[in-house]
Amino acid sequence: MNGRKTNLPSRTVERFFLYSRFLKAKRERGAEYVFSHELSLAVGISPEQVRQDMRRLNVRGTPQKGYLIDAFLADLNECLGSAVTAKAVLIGAGNLGRALLSHFTLAWPSLKIIAAFDRDRKLAGSVIASCRIYNMTQLASVLKKEKPLVGIIAVPPDDAQQIADELAAGGVKGLLNFAPAAIKPARGVYLEQIDLLMALEKTAFFARNI
Amino acid sequence: MNGRKTNLPSRTVERFFLYSRFLKAKRERGAEYVFSHELSLAVGISPEQVRQDMRRLNVRGTPQKGYLIDAFLADLNECLGSAVTAKAVLIGAGNLGRALLSHFTLAWPSLKIIAAFDRDRKLAGSVIASCRIYNMTQLASVLKKEKPLVGIIAVPPDDAQQIADELAAGGVKGLLNFAPAAIKPARGVYLEQIDLLMALEKTAFFARNI
Repeated sequence: MNGRKTNLPSRTVERFFLYSRFLKAKRERGAEYVFSHELSLAVGISPEQVRQDMRRLNVRGTPQKGYLIDAFLADLNECLGSAVTAKAVLIGAGNLGRALLSHFTLAWPSLKIIAAFDRDRKLAGSVIASCRIYNMTQLASVLKKEKPLVGIIAVPPDDAQQIADELAAGGVKGLLNFAPAAIKPARGVYLEQIDLLMALEKTAFFARNI
Repeated sequence: MNGRKTNLPSRTVERFFLYSRFLKAKRERGAEYVFSHELSLAVGISPEQVRQDMRRLNVRGTPQKGYLIDAFLADLNECLGSAVTAKAVLIGAGNLGRALLSHFTLAWPSLKIIAAFDRDRKLAGSVIASCRIYNMTQLASVLKKEKPLVGIIAVPPDDAQQIADELAAGGVKGLLNFAPAAIKPARGVYLEQIDLLMALEKTAFFARNI
């Protein structure tokens, strides 16, 4: 990745999100303090790595009580900028797209899928999980008006690259691609790929051969 | 992973599945031959790596026509054992579980989700995408009778470890975990983890900072 404004590596960002998720859940259960070994066990990251990350974040605690969760979370939030709600669009409202829509809109309050698009004209105008489905021809104008940060791609593999290009042209800076296709993001666009079928196929393969 | 019967590393298995997927799609469009550079471009893997894999598979071709797709696919199938249909169960028929059910049963004919389970008694007896939902209390008896290879976990994070243990105790050899929780598989069980929210959060983070 060229030109990133952050110097946090991808693995560090992942660990910070895991910490943040665990701390929020723990605070919701009424806890005020957390021990590093407890955090390590919960997120499956070595105690050494957790302590190194905490030093980096400048989190302070005592051996008796552990670390103050609120202060820890404030540091993580500042680092991750996760207090801000991100706007996203979803491209492809087939089985997978609709599934993602009903899952994500409920599970991730800090991301808002503001619009979904599909080539199927019969879907245009319908609403799924409070999200309106537009015809694909309206993509450019909605991108121009709403300026979403993230594009979620759930189209057939042959269409994925073109959609990625259209999203980038419309100013989208991050792509989450579910289409089982190797796409090349435009310069200055971050790409995250999730290949659900690959994950299933790998699981079945190693389950047979373990 | 200890005691694997295969010596194929995870990355190699991934590449082989990508090749297989592309070759099947190409054959369906009527092609008989494929060039290595074409395969390389389509799956996003370097030409050197593709040629190295082809030598390993003993795939032969000519510079004029390329490689015979059928022979290539036969080698890949033998390696991956993917001609066999795998039985899977799905645990958790909430938003995500139902979404996976409607997506996977259509998209992956070589895996069959034979049963789904949920704690919610109101769901028991219903059928989604041709798959019957059972009450969680029936899990052990269905595992004993059906002997599925793979378990797909889509339960809340706090329940994931217990479900993983129950699946392993019932003879399941591969787990695909969608719950945002660090679970530890039993000895002799392969675990693949997909963290959808993490993927979205990472995409939003790097999109902001690119």
